[in-house]
Amino acid sequence: MAIDFKQDILAPVAADFAAMDKFINEGISSKVALVMSVSKHVVEAGGKRMRPIMCLLAAQACGETDLTRTQRLAAVIEMLHTATLVHDDVVDESNLRRGRPTANATWNNQTAVLVGDFLIARSFDLLVDLNNMTLLKDFSTGTCEIAEGEVLQLQAQHQPDTTEETYLNIIHGKTSRLFQLATEGAAILAGKSEYRQALKTYAGHFGNAFQIIDDILDYTSDAETLGKNIGDDLMEGKPTLPLISALKNTAGEDHAVIRRSIATGGTADLERVISIVQTSGALDYCSQRATEETDAALAALQALPDSEYRQALSNLAKLALHRIQ
Amino acid sequence: MAIDFKQDILAPVAADFAAMDKFINEGISSKVALVMSVSKHVVEAGGKRMRPIMCLLAAQACGETDLTRTQRLAAVIEMLHTATLVHDDVVDESNLRRGRPTANATWNNQTAVLVGDFLIARSFDLLVDLNNMTLLKDFSTGTCEIAEGEVLQLQAQHQPDTTEETYLNIIHGKTSRLFQLATEGAAILAGKSEYRQALKTYAGHFGNAFQIIDDILDYTSDAETLGKNIGDDLMEGKPTLPLISALKNTAGEDHAVIRRSIATGGTADLERVISIVQTSGALDYCSQRATEETDAALAALQALPDSEYRQALSNLAKLALHRIQ
Repeated sequence: MAIDFKQDILAPVAADFAAMDKFINEGISSKVALVMSVSKHVVEAGGKRMRPIMCLLAAQACGETDLTRTQRLAAVIEMLHTATLVHDDVVDESNLRRGRPTANATWNNQTAVLVGDFLIARSFDLLVDLNNMTLLKDFSTGTCEIAEGEVLQLQAQHQPDTTEETYLNIIHGKTSRLFQLATEGAAILAGKSEYRQALKTYAGHFGNAFQIIDDILDYTSDAETLGKNIGDDLMEGKPTLPLISALKNTAGEDHAVIRRSIATGGTADLERVISIVQTSGALDYCSQRATEETDAALAALQALPDSEYRQALSNLAKLALHRIQ
Repeated sequence: MAIDFKQDILAPVAADFAAMDKFINEGISSKVALVMSVSKHVVEAGGKRMRPIMCLLAAQACGETDLTRTQRLAAVIEMLHTATLVHDDVVDESNLRRGRPTANATWNNQTAVLVGDFLIARSFDLLVDLNNMTLLKDFSTGTCEIAEGEVLQLQAQHQPDTTEETYLNIIHGKTSRLFQLATEGAAILAGKSEYRQALKTYAGHFGNAFQIIDDILDYTSDAETLGKNIGDDLMEGKPTLPLISALKNTAGEDHAVIRRSIATGGTADLERVISIVQTSGALDYCSQRATEETDAALAALQALPDSEYRQALSNLAKLALHRIQ
């Protein structure tokens, strides 16, 4: 039976979700008009708000009763996520995100850099209000790792010798670490330290699966379903798992084409690269890795008591995997 | 008698300064090689480390005895300052700072944006280790205001109608707020809440004076003494106090030249603008305002007990004013 996002994931925390959304909008208050309009633009351009939903589900799965605090934490998670997207779009020179013009495209790079800084600072400011030193330490350390992951990704750009280990370090920083903050943070705030590790393990593996799936879709999806264009990563010379795996599985001219495409970027050889990725077994390997990561995420959830919230977290991981099945 | 920076400002906290410098270097640890090299580059490019020195002096002036904690706070101040400079240089497209190539010039904008993010996150991470919730709240709120000041400055660029009030809001964010965090933060950490307001008032006025002086020097100094070029602000169409004041004091063609220079940027009319600024009484007004701000800063210090540290804070404000006398 197909998993439905609204029904099988969002529904158990729908009321918290609405409250969280209000906290995000209240949170981006500023006396500076330009800060307000850019912040509103980028926060509204958000997608399904998967990270704050994970946070709300994790809190309920732990048995948290003070949901106002969790709603505030979930709002911080989304704001921090938005801040990183604003800077990512500057770094990648992206003009569109989810079919909407990015902040750097609508205003300019300067504005996007500075409003991104404001959103990072404001996230910490709202987090401090939750008055929990353990949570603050987790977030401050985690935010360093997120920035490190982004730099690592930049460093790997155009490097055909990037290893799978480096790729995993990159996706840990750029994706999985914030997933971990969302779920482990909920347990910390709930005072349920016994569930911290399980939720962190779930989120770490789910984050890895999610990013591997995203990287697969860059070579298989069409623009309509994804809101991004096929070949975006290739364009930027990003050595994602499909290419790293294709390099392992090929020799001769095919191998040389992939190496050159990473080194130079651009989509001149896009069709050939797609064909090599698909026929060399690289996509099969990526799908297998995504499945393994998903299985590890689901296994970790077993440490939590059975509930509709735990089930929804499980559904979320399964739904993500479904995108490549 | 001329004030000497080393003798009359640094000397009382020279030992703390050396320890602080060590904490900065230890603080920029990262597993990612590029994060390390960029961070080291920008931190080493630092100047006199005036902000951490203010922090160390403020702590001693309060009677703080646990100086290790203050040294760590001072290191955080300098790291946060460095982070804002890295992003400023991206925003202003600057290639040189203090005669050294900037991070964006040495590497690229992308790297500078992301390493700046790392330095912001790491500053908070080190701050959390000081385990003081009042301090954290002051810093998280203050960092929002700093970012807002930077956005306000961007918004005012090329706007000849910028008021003196807006200018004061800009320099509060871009300069004075971090001065306040450095000194008030020292009092918070020392548990000397009775001195918080005095030190904040001192730093706020001193910051205003410092920035007004800096903006005067952009129309009077030569490159050798300042490490920046005369006319940099005009080049970027920044409506600083010398121009805002010149607009008030002029009419006709002179007025039109200043308006046009702000609106378009560039240095085509640099010599004429300098001449108007100097002859219209604008520089006199700016000097008067800098003196008033310095006097207010010095007056605030009187609430602290007399000590060589209070005297050094006083010397620092006087030395800054001396640059335009």
